[in-house]
Amino acid sequence: MAAEKEFVKELTSKSEDFSQWYVDVIRKTDMADYSSIKGCMVIKPYGYALWENIRDGLDRRIKATGHQNAYFPLFVPESLLRLEAEHIEGFAPEVAWVTHGGNEKLEERLAIRPTSEAIICSIYAKWIHSYRDLPILINQWANIVRWEKVTRLFLRTTEFLWQEGHTCHRTEEEAQEETIKMLNVYKEFMETELATPVIVGQKTEREKFAGALRTYTIEALMADGKALQGGTSHNLGQHFAKVFKIKFLDEDQSEKYVWQTSWGVSTRLVGGVVMVHGDDAGLVLPPRIAPIQVVFVPIYFERTKEEIRAKVTALAEALPGIRVEADLRDTFTPGWKFNHWEMKGVPVRIEVGPKDIAKHQVVIVRRDTREKIFVPETEMRATVERLLVDIQRSLFDRATAFLKENTRSVTDYGEFKELIESKRGFLVADWCGQAACEDKIKEDTKATIRCIPFDLSPSPQATCICCGSGANHRVYFARAY
Amino acid sequence: MAAEKEFVKELTSKSEDFSQWYVDVIRKTDMADYSSIKGCMVIKPYGYALWENIRDGLDRRIKATGHQNAYFPLFVPESLLRLEAEHIEGFAPEVAWVTHGGNEKLEERLAIRPTSEAIICSIYAKWIHSYRDLPILINQWANIVRWEKVTRLFLRTTEFLWQEGHTCHRTEEEAQEETIKMLNVYKEFMETELATPVIVGQKTEREKFAGALRTYTIEALMADGKALQGGTSHNLGQHFAKVFKIKFLDEDQSEKYVWQTSWGVSTRLVGGVVMVHGDDAGLVLPPRIAPIQVVFVPIYFERTKEEIRAKVTALAEALPGIRVEADLRDTFTPGWKFNHWEMKGVPVRIEVGPKDIAKHQVVIVRRDTREKIFVPETEMRATVERLLVDIQRSLFDRATAFLKENTRSVTDYGEFKELIESKRGFLVADWCGQAACEDKIKEDTKATIRCIPFDLSPSPQATCICCGSGANHRVYFARAY
Repeated sequence: MAAEKEFVKELTSKSEDFSQWYVDVIRKTDMADYSSIKGCMVIKPYGYALWENIRDGLDRRIKATGHQNAYFPLFVPESLLRLEAEHIEGFAPEVAWVTHGGNEKLEERLAIRPTSEAIICSIYAKWIHSYRDLPILINQWANIVRWEKVTRLFLRTTEFLWQEGHTCHRTEEEAQEETIKMLNVYKEFMETELATPVIVGQKTEREKFAGALRTYTIEALMADGKALQGGTSHNLGQHFAKVFKIKFLDEDQSEKYVWQTSWGVSTRLVGGVVMVHGDDAGLVLPPRIAPIQVVFVPIYFERTKEEIRAKVTALAEALPGIRVEADLRDTFTPGWKFNHWEMKGVPVRIEVGPKDIAKHQVVIVRRDTREKIFVPETEMRATVERLLVDIQRSLFDRATAFLKENTRSVTDYGEFKELIESKRGFLVADWCGQAACEDKIKEDTKATIRCIPFDLSPSPQATCICCGSGANHRVYFARAY
Repeated sequence: MAAEKEFVKELTSKSEDFSQWYVDVIRKTDMADYSSIKGCMVIKPYGYALWENIRDGLDRRIKATGHQNAYFPLFVPESLLRLEAEHIEGFAPEVAWVTHGGNEKLEERLAIRPTSEAIICSIYAKWIHSYRDLPILINQWANIVRWEKVTRLFLRTTEFLWQEGHTCHRTEEEAQEETIKMLNVYKEFMETELATPVIVGQKTEREKFAGALRTYTIEALMADGKALQGGTSHNLGQHFAKVFKIKFLDEDQSEKYVWQTSWGVSTRLVGGVVMVHGDDAGLVLPPRIAPIQVVFVPIYFERTKEEIRAKVTALAEALPGIRVEADLRDTFTPGWKFNHWEMKGVPVRIEVGPKDIAKHQVVIVRRDTREKIFVPETEMRATVERLLVDIQRSLFDRATAFLKENTRSVTDYGEFKELIESKRGFLVADWCGQAACEDKIKEDTKATIRCIPFDLSPSPQATCICCGSGANHRVYFARAY
């Protein structure tokens, strides 16, 4: 028992120090680790398996909505990056520059892509000639580099992995439709796969993507009451098309610029999963994306060890289509293993001891509620399948309830400041629409406008939470990662 | 018909100019294109879909043999890269260097990984403490940058995609076993998925990986008689372990260095598929990796267009589990589409016209032999499934026969020189084992030793093809990509 207590002690309490708890969980569960290169992490097998499941679930949806994957160069020549003024201004401070190839100095510096609009637009300009070439619906899975000053595992790292969709359309309407379509794909994906409810809406001018016409976002609420931007979808308008000369001859024989979108989510979603569902014992993973969905822990006794090992092996094989691990090691106690796999967030644990074998039963424990049930062997498979669905839904329901509880309407700025300090969460408030108020609120409270939601608008009498003049928007504020 | 003739004319004849044919095929089928960055290509959706199928087929095998995926940083600090002398010597001329992050000059230059031994070994050194931590069986899918002087689409590009396995073992035997195991995984994968037979064996000292103890290779023969190194598996011995101090406490309480392997294949396999199976009409893709396995081409007539469109749509849906495309466009003639999809290498084409509907039949044409058969609708699915298997096997058999025909034993150096010039292919010859002869042969003939095969050895009287002294090895020579 001493070893088991020590085990649990390894994790900082979530309520005491959320930041340290987060880092502890990531590192102790072997999801990721720091590297010797500032801000770059190593994604270890357990964290990468989680990312693979997230990636595959999203990739299916991206393809199902008519997109194809492709791969564009890692490098962006400096001249290309500089073509769009807003864009370079937004990214210049965080670009890593390649200046030498082999032993020679390059004639022109190459940026390592901080995002791929510039390189992809320059290529699209060569591909697109006629309206018949449209729409272009392409997605890329790639690594991205941004020279960040302050980094956190998964949430903000110098190098990260992501997908970036880049599409070209014939009309403004089509581009807007695509922008919203992918935003909704992200929302459904977050809810279904990550069991994470999100607030959906538009970014303010101040928060939008450098070079975009409009940026839309999905915002999730972490267990510490801070928001996490889960993904963004940009209507790029014709800005990049004009800069990179992406033109087509339309059916009416006139030359026009294309309308574009781009949209992406990244490995920061892994951090989101940790922060939305985790508890003091470690990770709690949604079954649909869990690398291991069911873990078997044999309860060994010396005399019956071989029998139990054989039984566990047979039972594990009786769960086809489910990601199963049988922890047959005899160098660790069952209690140590319970803690170990709980910390790893495995949704379902199945214990098998001599008594269970005698009774033709198994003991099933779910990670989220820790509820323990005794189930006849013959019903194991059906029970596990039901539990995996149930846990997925329970996690979503719990996160939804938390989001609801921590979303508060507020009309008084004093109350706003008090609430953001004491409770955090989302504050729904009216806003005049001026950047000056947005800036002041950020300065006063560290809260930013996470989004202007589609489904809320201020009442006719509403006034700005900050300056008191007439309100134009009803928006979500939060402190954010 | 004019348009159709022109279509075919777009491709250079394979026998007339193989190099130009290769580039034409890649570009006209929209697999890849050059970018504005020297030596970097864009992998277009059709080429990327092919790569995804290759990747997935290999990823399954890598996981089935007990490996897990992970992700390590793109950057290698210069000091790490310089730790192993042979390694830096091998890679220094082709490294891209990052010198600036944001607006600041970095204290130390960062190499963009030309391969990941240095960065991964430095991390493994922190992970491994005890024999209980071994083996480490990790694979990474990543982009790699090598500043190449001469590049060719897919075959040699400044940036490419690959997988690299990096494993650590307790004993020398285990590492050697792993090295050969992965070599055999590559061989089986090449044969089964890419329908490409390979020669398997060890590289000479001159050709081995910089820093490795022994390098093993799979070598395929392209249709122009040149060899392509398809993948390599390295027994790294303890070289890197000693340099990066990857030590463990063994069960006997003594501290030991680990034994390592690394192994990789890359996007150049896509080029291999083109060059092994393609013909004058374009790509010929093995069904198992073809992005589209079956294409439907309706034979429209004005009066029956809607009926045919509905029939083709219904038939396409009747092939679940098969990657199907229905080319319903009415802006192109059936003849144009035949050429188009042949060029794209789609294994099976199904034509449906009014007469076929009347007879409840479809017309099925296989890409490899162009054989045309008339099949009752009710037998379409079974026929297609059979054909896909049959085409896969036929392509492998054809490539195997070609490999056999173009592998020649030779004992006279004059004949060697004549054959390598006139016929190319593999020349099997005896070799003394001296690098001097290897170099001279390369200088005289541009042929290199592709491998020292496991299953051949010189007869006792055999003499070196070059210097005439006693032979120690019987090896495969070829000109290579």
